[in-house]
Amino acid sequence: MRYHVNGALVDAADATVSVRDRGFQYGDAAFETMRAYGGQTFAWTAHYRRLQATCDSLGIDHGLSEAALRGRVHETLAANDLADAYVRLSITRGVQDGRLTPRDTTDPTVVVVVDALPRGGVDGDPVWSMPATVETTTVTQHRDTTIPSTAKTHNYLPGVLARRDIAADADEALFVTPDGHLTEGAASNLFFVADGTLYTPSGDLDVLPGITRWAVAELAAEHGLTVHTGAYTPSRLYDADEAFLTNTTWEVRPIARVDDATYDTCRIGAALASAYNAEIERRHY
Amino acid sequence: MRYHVNGALVDAADATVSVRDRGFQYGDAAFETMRAYGGQTFAWTAHYRRLQATCDSLGIDHGLSEAALRGRVHETLAANDLADAYVRLSITRGVQDGRLTPRDTTDPTVVVVVDALPRGGVDGDPVWSMPATVETTTVTQHRDTTIPSTAKTHNYLPGVLARRDIAADADEALFVTPDGHLTEGAASNLFFVADGTLYTPSGDLDVLPGITRWAVAELAAEHGLTVHTGAYTPSRLYDADEAFLTNTTWEVRPIARVDDATYDTCRIGAALASAYNAEIERRHY
Repeated sequence: MRYHVNGALVDAADATVSVRDRGFQYGDAAFETMRAYGGQTFAWTAHYRRLQATCDSLGIDHGLSEAALRGRVHETLAANDLADAYVRLSITRGVQDGRLTPRDTTDPTVVVVVDALPRGGVDGDPVWSMPATVETTTVTQHRDTTIPSTAKTHNYLPGVLARRDIAADADEALFVTPDGHLTEGAASNLFFVADGTLYTPSGDLDVLPGITRWAVAELAAEHGLTVHTGAYTPSRLYDADEAFLTNTTWEVRPIARVDDATYDTCRIGAALASAYNAEIERRHY
Repeated sequence: MRYHVNGALVDAADATVSVRDRGFQYGDAAFETMRAYGGQTFAWTAHYRRLQATCDSLGIDHGLSEAALRGRVHETLAANDLADAYVRLSITRGVQDGRLTPRDTTDPTVVVVVDALPRGGVDGDPVWSMPATVETTTVTQHRDTTIPSTAKTHNYLPGVLARRDIAADADEALFVTPDGHLTEGAASNLFFVADGTLYTPSGDLDVLPGITRWAVAELAAEHGLTVHTGAYTPSRLYDADEAFLTNTTWEVRPIARVDDATYDTCRIGAALASAYNAEIERRHY
C-alpha cells in the first residue's frame, strides 16, 4: 500500500511523521474518515467542511485548498488501484518549537492513509457480518468546553477507553452523559425506533455531527419518516422496537443487543440501509 | 541531535513513527517530561511510577523493565553529550489493525526525545527569564471519567486549547472547574501563599500529580511550612500575597500576574526555589 505524506506518495513502511510532530506529541490534529465507492469519495463536501471546522477549532491554518486536499485523496486511491476503500485524512499542526503554546501553522503535516474495504451495498460483501452488540460505558466524552464536540481530533482516547471498558466481544460502546442521557457510540451515531418513530440523540448533547447520521436522517425524511432529536435515557433505548448505528465504515448497522435488551427486528433500519445503498449507487459508479 | 526510537539511536531527522501508530492516530500513548542534571534524570523513580500508572490506565503493557527504559534515556543523553537536558519519554500502543478497539500490546513504540536545557539553579542560566504572567481560561480539563487525571497522555489538546485561549503574551493558562475551583496550569501546578500559609489545589479536583509539585511540598514541609490542599476559587488566588507555578522544566517559577491581580513579591516561592536548587545539587553532580 502507498500513502500520501506531505505531498508525496510513499510506501506504507516509509509513511511516517516526526516524533516531534504535534499530532504525535499532543494529538494536535484534525482528521476525517471517509469511504470511496467506485473511486469517488462519498460526501466529500460534508467531510471537507467538518475537517475545516475542526481545523478552525484548533486554529490550524493548513493553507491547502479543498481541491488540493481532494486531489491528494484521489492520488492515493489511484496509486493503490483502489476503487472501494477506507480513507483517513489527517492534518496536524506539524513540528514546532518545543513549547506547548502553538505557533502559527507554517508547516502542517498532511497524511492520507487508505485501505481496501469491501463495497457492501447492493451487490457487494458487507463490512460487518452480524448486527452489532452494544454496551453502555461509564467512560464519558469530552465536555464541549474541553474539546468542542464538533471537532474530530487525534485526541481519541475517550473512544479507546470506552471500547476497553466494554466486554471484549461487544462491538460498540455507547456514551451516556453524567446526567444519564445517551449521546453516541465510540465511533458511531445511534438511532432507535419506537412505535414507528425514529429517534437520535440531539446535537445539543455534544454529539459529533456524524455525516452518515446526517445522510440517513435526510433519507428518512425523503421516505416520510420524521427524525426526533432529543435527550433520551438508556431505558428509552432498551424499550425501543429496533435500533441501529451509523458511521462511514459501517454505514447502517442494526443492533442486536444493548446491555440486557435485545431486538429481534430492524425493519426501518434495513429500509434505510437499502435507501443508503441506493443513494451510493445513484451518486457513484 | 539523536533520539531513541524503538531501541535504536537515530538522527533527529530520521526519528519517526508510522502514520498508523496509535500514538499518532488517537493520542493512544503515555509520556513523561523529565530533566537531567549532570547526566542524571531527576526524580526518575517518581516519573517511572507515573508512567506506569498512565500505561495501566490505558492498558498498555509495554513489557520493558524500569532498567531498560532508564537505559534508553541515558543512552540518548550520552549519544548527544548532554548533561543538563530536557527529556521526553513516550510509550504508545504501536501499530495495530485498523480498528479503534485496542488489542494486546505486542509492539509498543518507545521514543526518547532530548534537548539541551540550561541548568538554572545555583550557578546556571535559568530556563525562564521573568516571572510568569498567568490567565484563567474557560477551557476545561478532562473529567476524571473521560481520561483519568492521574494519566499523562498524548491527548493533550485541552492544554493546547487553553494556551490558545489566553493572551499571546501570557505564559500559562490556569484551569478552573465548572463549579469555579482552581486546578492547575496547562503544563504546571499552582501554589499560592496567604498569611504565611502555602496552598495548592487538591488532587481530589482531578489535578495531575505533578512531580515538582510533590518535591516542592516535601521541601516546604522540611522547612516547617504546612501545605494546605483544597478547593480554592480564583478570588483566593487574586487576594494571595504571592503565587508560583511548578513543573519539571520551570522548576519553581514566580507569578507576576493572574488576570488583573499582580504580586510584587515571591518570598516563600524564592526560598522554595533555592531549596529545590540545593536538593538538585545534593542529588546530582
